[in-house]
Amino acid sequence: MKFTAGQIAAMINGTVEGNPETQVHKLSKIEQGEPGSITFLGNPKYAQYLYQTNASVIIVNSDFTPEKPLQSTLIRVENAYTAFAMMLDAYNQIKQNKTGISKQSCIAETATIGENCYIAEFVSIGENVVVGNNAKIYPGSVIGDNTTVGDNTVIYAGVKIYSDCSIGSGCTLHAGVVIGADGFGFAPQSDNQYQKVAQIGNVILEDNVEIGANTTIDRATLGSTIIRKGVKIDNLIQIAHNVEIGENTVIAAQSGIAGSAKIGKNCMIAGQVGIIGHLEVGDNVKIAAQSGISTSVPANSILMGSPAFDISAYRKAYVHFRNLHKLNDRVSKLEKQAGN
Amino acid sequence: MKFTAGQIAAMINGTVEGNPETQVHKLSKIEQGEPGSITFLGNPKYAQYLYQTNASVIIVNSDFTPEKPLQSTLIRVENAYTAFAMMLDAYNQIKQNKTGISKQSCIAETATIGENCYIAEFVSIGENVVVGNNAKIYPGSVIGDNTTVGDNTVIYAGVKIYSDCSIGSGCTLHAGVVIGADGFGFAPQSDNQYQKVAQIGNVILEDNVEIGANTTIDRATLGSTIIRKGVKIDNLIQIAHNVEIGENTVIAAQSGIAGSAKIGKNCMIAGQVGIIGHLEVGDNVKIAAQSGISTSVPANSILMGSPAFDISAYRKAYVHFRNLHKLNDRVSKLEKQAGN
Amino acid sequence: MKFTAGQIAAMINGTVEGNPETQVHKLSKIEQGEPGSITFLGNPKYAQYLYQTNASVIIVNSDFTPEKPLQSTLIRVENAYTAFAMMLDAYNQIKQNKTGISKQSCIAETATIGENCYIAEFVSIGENVVVGNNAKIYPGSVIGDNTTVGDNTVIYAGVKIYSDCSIGSGCTLHAGVVIGADGFGFAPQSDNQYQKVAQIGNVILEDNVEIGANTTIDRATLGSTIIRKGVKIDNLIQIAHNVEIGENTVIAAQSGIAGSAKIGKNCMIAGQVGIIGHLEVGDNVKIAAQSGISTSVPANSILMGSPAFDISAYRKAYVHFRNLHKLNDRVSKLEKQAGN
Repeated sequence: MKFTAGQIAAMINGTVEGNPETQVHKLSKIEQGEPGSITFLGNPKYAQYLYQTNASVIIVNSDFTPEKPLQSTLIRVENAYTAFAMMLDAYNQIKQNKTGISKQSCIAETATIGENCYIAEFVSIGENVVVGNNAKIYPGSVIGDNTTVGDNTVIYAGVKIYSDCSIGSGCTLHAGVVIGADGFGFAPQSDNQYQKVAQIGNVILEDNVEIGANTTIDRATLGSTIIRKGVKIDNLIQIAHNVEIGENTVIAAQSGIAGSAKIGKNCMIAGQVGIIGHLEVGDNVKIAAQSGISTSVPANSILMGSPAFDISAYRKAYVHFRNLHKLNDRVSKLEKQAGN
Repeated sequence: MKFTAGQIAAMINGTVEGNPETQVHKLSKIEQGEPGSITFLGNPKYAQYLYQTNASVIIVNSDFTPEKPLQSTLIRVENAYTAFAMMLDAYNQIKQNKTGISKQSCIAETATIGENCYIAEFVSIGENVVVGNNAKIYPGSVIGDNTTVGDNTVIYAGVKIYSDCSIGSGCTLHAGVVIGADGFGFAPQSDNQYQKVAQIGNVILEDNVEIGANTTIDRATLGSTIIRKGVKIDNLIQIAHNVEIGENTVIAAQSGIAGSAKIGKNCMIAGQVGIIGHLEVGDNVKIAAQSGISTSVPANSILMGSPAFDISAYRKAYVHFRNLHKLNDRVSKLEKQAGN
Repeated sequence: MKFTAGQIAAMINGTVEGNPETQVHKLSKIEQGEPGSITFLGNPKYAQYLYQTNASVIIVNSDFTPEKPLQSTLIRVENAYTAFAMMLDAYNQIKQNKTGISKQSCIAETATIGENCYIAEFVSIGENVVVGNNAKIYPGSVIGDNTTVGDNTVIYAGVKIYSDCSIGSGCTLHAGVVIGADGFGFAPQSDNQYQKVAQIGNVILEDNVEIGANTTIDRATLGSTIIRKGVKIDNLIQIAHNVEIGENTVIAAQSGIAGSAKIGKNCMIAGQVGIIGHLEVGDNVKIAAQSGISTSVPANSILMGSPAFDISAYRKAYVHFRNLHKLNDRVSKLEKQAGN
């Protein structure tokens, strides 16, 4: 697949600066650009590479001003990162065009499969399952009874979805994801044993949700664990029973959210964060990596620490923490002076 | 399925307060109760909802005293949470009554399968495996050679159990669990390379153990990694080789226990806790979320922090930490006064 | 299988101290040694057990000097742990000698399978996959299109490898591992939604890499996520897109490394560590459990804390932290004396 800078610019609503006939046939990282490749400048931190790259075409933001003359042809767009993403996506969709239902799958007679689906070998689809049009289900995935999967959703290999769940349209579930396992609910008994509390709710993923590899989302005790539309969840994350996560919130790898917590819209939660149960995190909250949220949090907060508080206060406290021996020495000196 | 308050009260050893003929046909959360539903008051925090719920029947603790008149029929029991759990469990068991052995499974000729089992499609059962009566094994699970699975145990989809392990009776293993992978043991060589230490022990789960989705429990180098009866382990937890966990201990999601650590009975370990190897945690210990345990811990301790120490001491220290700038300012003022 | 101390000594280049005709037929831990068993003394912490064990043969380091008379026959070797490991490994390889290609597997016609392989039931092997000689692939694993698997590599049950990846020779991938899922890359849009950035790179595992159960290694956005030869990665670890990990680095369970971080050679990263993206960790760095690395780190550093700094400075600061109430009291006393 060869394209000219002009063709690509037309595809991503950009304007060419340089030779619109410049041809490219592959993608590259800006720091490794070879002739014939196209790359982009998203993070200004990498601007230095612009002047030494051999990439033939570079996508840049419209307001970018080079500090030195450039050899590459530029395509200016409103947002270079987004434009590059659009381009990659088009390329990727050409690559992943599997369809057909494998004879080595196992589909219940009561299940309904939409048009143009891919159902791979060793996929198990339970009673009354409904799979929408253009859905793709990779080898070894298991869809439990009564679960629905929306149009255009991609379920990669070895995903396990329990019964009675609802997966929206345009979702992506990566390999090893588990949806709808029992919430962790046990009633303590007088003899120190625990009696299991049956978990008879379900999990709802709304549209355009992406779930990373080996992440687990437990079913509700009653009602639903709900992941609202546009939410993006990374790998190895734990979402406990009855949690609700608001639209377009993003959560990085290995974070965990305990039972019945309610997370707002447009939040950004970094990696390895823990959020305890039965609290509310407001909209637009940002939480730094490894933080622990132990109380409800108002909208627009930016937090750090375990337990977490305001990030700039945390950072200030942490500088003092690093220098505690100096503070201690200063107090010792004062004590000496005071004859203590 | 319709039941009267009187029928349910008889089932859970309760006494009816109100009309014993009140009918219910579904379950609800207390804050969402609709007419015809049954709910319960477990956490006093939710008592406010009692006065506005439309649930027809509410299970409450026997010592509950309403502050206002109530419309719903009450069933008084010793422990409302436990009683509700018993009811849900009965309901759930009616729902999950799969049996039969799929022709699309793969069972070694030397394996023994008990009576009334469910062995789903794409299940692999190795040489000399013994599966007890009434066991259920969901699609895509793999049971390695010589492993035994006790009566009434449920193994959900995509569980992988390596060879030579022992799973007790009445256990529940959720989707994606891995039992018996090699412990992480490598002997450093003089050239910076590592030589693998073969892991030839196994894993033993005693009876009534529940393991959450995608949790991993490694086999012992020699001997056994042992999970004692009644232990409840949440999702995405790591249990390393040669660990032993005492009866009825409960561990929340994403915690990790390093090699050869020995955890006591009736402990409560919150989420994202780390426990280093070769130490002992006594009985009845409680550990707060995200704590790190780096030394042995006596029975009945309550701990927090990384490294962890007594929880109330930690909380006090953390308040001072949050206010370190103030302490610093106070010292600066004293220094000024002293002419330092 | 019975062996004499003399036979074993010959196998592991040791010298016998005691009766070379002493027979053993099983392995034991030093603290549980029974007659007829062989064990070893690796960690000096366990030296006390030497004098009470009933093990018939004990492998010890050549420089070991007993404090009391010993009943067991000793085999002296340069490194007792390594020698014991060699012995276990020989034993384990006899145990795991599966070969043959199951008729219940699904192998694309364009795939190439080497000699003497084991391809179990319910394994899916995609288009153009190349599997080397003596490779073993356990039940339910999925190898995506165009991926290569080197000679002598073992892929345990339920591993999912996406398309276009490269797995070296002599690697071990434990059950539930996911290789090559999409990196977590999304471009924020003006309406708070995120547009997925297609992830079209791959993952490369060089030779002799071991990956623990349920660990996830994401494919690069462009280029490759690279795990260099000899790296050992424990369970439930997250390796994000475009990360590179240097030779012989070891990472303990539940750690996470964010996108584009570059980790040096021979590092030791303990459990539950987080490393943020786009930074460099030098060679031979050691990082304590639960630490958070937020800036680049020079070679040979030893770090602790979140954010992490020099481990001895951290430990000192933490002692002061634990005693902050005392420092506070001392300042209060000074203030009183100063009339503040």
